[in-house]
Amino acid sequence: MSKVSIRTPDIVIGRLPIYLRVLEHIASNGTRVTSSQEMGEHLGISPAQIRKDLSHFGEFGKQGTGYDVVYLRKQLQRILGLQQDWDVALIGAGAVGKAIMRYAGFRGRGFHIAAVFDNDDSKIGRKINNLKILHVNVLKSTIHQMGIRMAMITVPSEQAQKVADMLVEASVEAVLNYAPVNLIVPPEVHVQHIDPVVGLQHMTYYLSSYSTLTQG
Amino acid sequence: MSKVSIRTPDIVIGRLPIYLRVLEHIASNGTRVTSSQEMGEHLGISPAQIRKDLSHFGEFGKQGTGYDVVYLRKQLQRILGLQQDWDVALIGAGAVGKAIMRYAGFRGRGFHIAAVFDNDDSKIGRKINNLKILHVNVLKSTIHQMGIRMAMITVPSEQAQKVADMLVEASVEAVLNYAPVNLIVPPEVHVQHIDPVVGLQHMTYYLSSYSTLTQG
Repeated sequence: MSKVSIRTPDIVIGRLPIYLRVLEHIASNGTRVTSSQEMGEHLGISPAQIRKDLSHFGEFGKQGTGYDVVYLRKQLQRILGLQQDWDVALIGAGAVGKAIMRYAGFRGRGFHIAAVFDNDDSKIGRKINNLKILHVNVLKSTIHQMGIRMAMITVPSEQAQKVADMLVEASVEAVLNYAPVNLIVPPEVHVQHIDPVVGLQHMTYYLSSYSTLTQG
Repeated sequence: MSKVSIRTPDIVIGRLPIYLRVLEHIASNGTRVTSSQEMGEHLGISPAQIRKDLSHFGEFGKQGTGYDVVYLRKQLQRILGLQQDWDVALIGAGAVGKAIMRYAGFRGRGFHIAAVFDNDDSKIGRKINNLKILHVNVLKSTIHQMGIRMAMITVPSEQAQKVADMLVEASVEAVLNYAPVNLIVPPEVHVQHIDPVVGLQHMTYYLSSYSTLTQG
């Protein structure tokens, strides 16, 4: 009989990076032991939910003694594949692309922008953060040569699907999409969206009358 | 006896904007009826989870007949408080701020950037998207006058907490934070983060050996 294998829900996986960020925050204050209670207060997630999520991956703390911050952080990094740095390609050297290149939040969190592409001839050869902008013509060959598996799309909406197709053809396996459009990719390719509207809409729920009227 | 009031978990609220975006995508193809199955396929969320989430807010479809796309969309907009457009203040007219001002994804989704602030004298008075950049000195008075309740922080990390304090003082109730730092705000103020690393780390889980080793 084969071992029963239960896939961890993607929703749970999506919360692990949030837990990791909170642990980084807690560690930055010099705190060495934390609890699902404390983590939950930072996140607006119930301690029970956090414990249940973590239980998919093992035992990380003992009832009543809390979590060792450094240990739990290392474990989450291991689960998320962050023992190594990942090279990421960025496609679209416009305003969003430039802002991302300068984003301070990548530091020490597992990612390195290794190549930047654009289709605007006037930008090719220029540098952002010491990285030469390459033409999308060489996207596939460069990505293959460098062994890049992840990419960020920061082109205008109308061009996002075309870029996604090129990335799929270059065997990229994970795409972070800043364009406000859904991308059609094969099921084995992972896509995440960066969309400020989702964050704003999450909060208007609490600011509007619905939540107070029904759940006051 | 008072009516028992059970608060909908914040995790569920956070998924409603994602459902709304998928419905917008489905509607853009001219599709009029959808299902939790179809929505789930777009999202990597189980149909059961989607049905359970929606059931917090009522009955939106009948077993076997699916959801009316227009109706469900309207209901989600109502629940999220999106029958009206929300004015949003943006603080930080740098690369990220400019990119957001030009972001096409706000259109028709409930938000309007109504004021932009910076502390760099050389930027004050200039326009982005026809909106004059104002000095943060007038942040509080402008926000009060305009009745703005939401803000986006796009300043460098070192300045994010200071700006958050100003926003709290100006009675802003919801903050979308682009700076890669945790903000300390009173519990009644809502904060959401925009952090590309969270999206990337979510995907490295699937690209690294952990998931394949343990969950085959």
